[in-house]
Amino acid sequence: MRAAAYLGDGSVAVTTLPPTPPAVDQVVIDVAYVGVCGTDLHIIHGSMDARVSRPLVFGHEMSGTIREVGAGVSGWSAGDSVTVMPLDWDGTCPACRHGHEHICQNLTFIGIDSPGALQQSWTVPASTLVAIPPTLSLRTAALIEPVAVAVHDVRRSELRAGDRAVVIGGGPIGVLIASVARQAGAEVVVLELDAGRREFIERLGFATVDPSSVDAVAWVEDWTSGAGADVVFEVSGAAAAVRSATALARVRGTVVIVAIHPTPREIDLQRVFWRELRLLGARVYQRIDFERAIELLDRQVIDAEAIITSVHPLTAVDAALRELEGGQALKVLIDVQSEGVSA
Amino acid sequence: MRAAAYLGDGSVAVTTLPPTPPAVDQVVIDVAYVGVCGTDLHIIHGSMDARVSRPLVFGHEMSGTIREVGAGVSGWSAGDSVTVMPLDWDGTCPACRHGHEHICQNLTFIGIDSPGALQQSWTVPASTLVAIPPTLSLRTAALIEPVAVAVHDVRRSELRAGDRAVVIGGGPIGVLIASVARQAGAEVVVLELDAGRREFIERLGFATVDPSSVDAVAWVEDWTSGAGADVVFEVSGAAAAVRSATALARVRGTVVIVAIHPTPREIDLQRVFWRELRLLGARVYQRIDFERAIELLDRQVIDAEAIITSVHPLTAVDAALRELEGGQALKVLIDVQSEGVSA
Repeated sequence: MRAAAYLGDGSVAVTTLPPTPPAVDQVVIDVAYVGVCGTDLHIIHGSMDARVSRPLVFGHEMSGTIREVGAGVSGWSAGDSVTVMPLDWDGTCPACRHGHEHICQNLTFIGIDSPGALQQSWTVPASTLVAIPPTLSLRTAALIEPVAVAVHDVRRSELRAGDRAVVIGGGPIGVLIASVARQAGAEVVVLELDAGRREFIERLGFATVDPSSVDAVAWVEDWTSGAGADVVFEVSGAAAAVRSATALARVRGTVVIVAIHPTPREIDLQRVFWRELRLLGARVYQRIDFERAIELLDRQVIDAEAIITSVHPLTAVDAALRELEGGQALKVLIDVQSEGVSA
Repeated sequence: MRAAAYLGDGSVAVTTLPPTPPAVDQVVIDVAYVGVCGTDLHIIHGSMDARVSRPLVFGHEMSGTIREVGAGVSGWSAGDSVTVMPLDWDGTCPACRHGHEHICQNLTFIGIDSPGALQQSWTVPASTLVAIPPTLSLRTAALIEPVAVAVHDVRRSELRAGDRAVVIGGGPIGVLIASVARQAGAEVVVLELDAGRREFIERLGFATVDPSSVDAVAWVEDWTSGAGADVVFEVSGAAAAVRSATALARVRGTVVIVAIHPTPREIDLQRVFWRELRLLGARVYQRIDFERAIELLDRQVIDAEAIITSVHPLTAVDAALRELEGGQALKVLIDVQSEGVSA
């Protein structure tokens, strides 16, 4: 079978691998679609070389169909449409014992710490499976994982109907957070530097602000009649965004740290103290977030086709990654079984 | 009557002022004891000159007896023992309308933004009064305000019985937070650089760690069987403490920012994200915190006499402030009516 793997030194190759037969409690999935994301770019750029073994078959946003179930698997059959929640926890660490298995202190993230979805036959623990309803296409279902990230972030914020929310950074996760927050009843503005992205986000019906030309703090003060935002989602990863995030939040407001900040960032703790702000880290998702993501996609609350920029065959994975690197694409999918050309 | 005022340029003078007659809804208090604190030092060092008008009668931790009630005041009589919650909010700003009057966007902090308690007759709004029970001496009651700060910080943390809590910084507020957290059922360790303070804190029955000679992160890991602390209180104001606070907290743990950090601080947002930490600002108090503080002092849960380092007459306010600056004192009181010498 065909697979795409990161080899190290910025290089990705499409290779042929023998399929892995299912062990006890495992299933084999014929992978349909895989989305590539910022984490995949971090991997292929070598930023995660200390963590990943090479060659690494990467990819963790996917949809597919069960081909074979291993011994001991119940409740799943060949032919079932599924996605995978790519978390494998140990169940014994202090975090797991507190009920926070999704951020287990020894978490295996499938597709980073073990082989991922960019292969025609993918063997995973049955415990990671989530059913895709018949009303949802496999193409749309490839968005379940990133939508679940957004659902988790919004749930963690405890945002309520009527709240005013600011999303800093209008990339794929920012747009999904804005969509989930709007569905929860919030009014949303997205801060985004790129004009093309702002135009796209406005077409989805959101207000946008260009923080390079508009004083975002004054804009939000005006928008909220002097209060500040109820919730601020920091999705950009930029140092300047961290500095402004606390300035945008109301008294007792919430700032959710969604983006990865690889180095320590300066933060205005005087403002955190003065306004009794709440800063929350939000990472990955729980099963409830996958279930809610499926519901939002199935009800077309998330405009999947607006978000899918392009679909490439597995043989063109390199072109797909280059497109994502360009910074204009939102969601780039790989059609893993196709022998065709990029669409 | 006699009063102590900050004149600017690091200078404090004891002067004679005419008493202010009570307006409608005001009372006049014969002030008994006033505690001096770090904020008072900030004022007299000029760090708050942009905020305070001079001369400023400062002081906001106090106890006293009502001498006279103004028109419209009901429920209070001459002779009542009282303390003052020194917050005057506007009631109309967005924070007040959200129910967060204690951190009103236009808060007047009495003793900073308007005349404070270091005067023999202090005229304040009756709405700020809190009754002192007959079982509590006026000397002990001067600690109500700082204990209320600690009660507010612990309440904000949502600490639960059985939690392990780290207090970074063993000054007066750190010691009070440790005491309130222990009363709430937590096991507490205090991180403190100063050997003299560590010795005192250990005599109060707390574990201490000297972070200059012990790896505090490893110590807390070991203490919590690899989990990390449930709650970390950052009370030191030090940049290094902010860096370690996130490293000390467990998955989904809480870091409370109690100290004032006048300049932006570097913080490990990767750790905030990775462990889904919660950072909370905590400032001043609400009436419920004053009531709880009175209860804790009345039940002798807080060892007031261990915490009161010395008592000086108002004429020796300068000596009291120098003693506090020395960094070894915990709570230094001013006996406002006394004609005597320092004790």
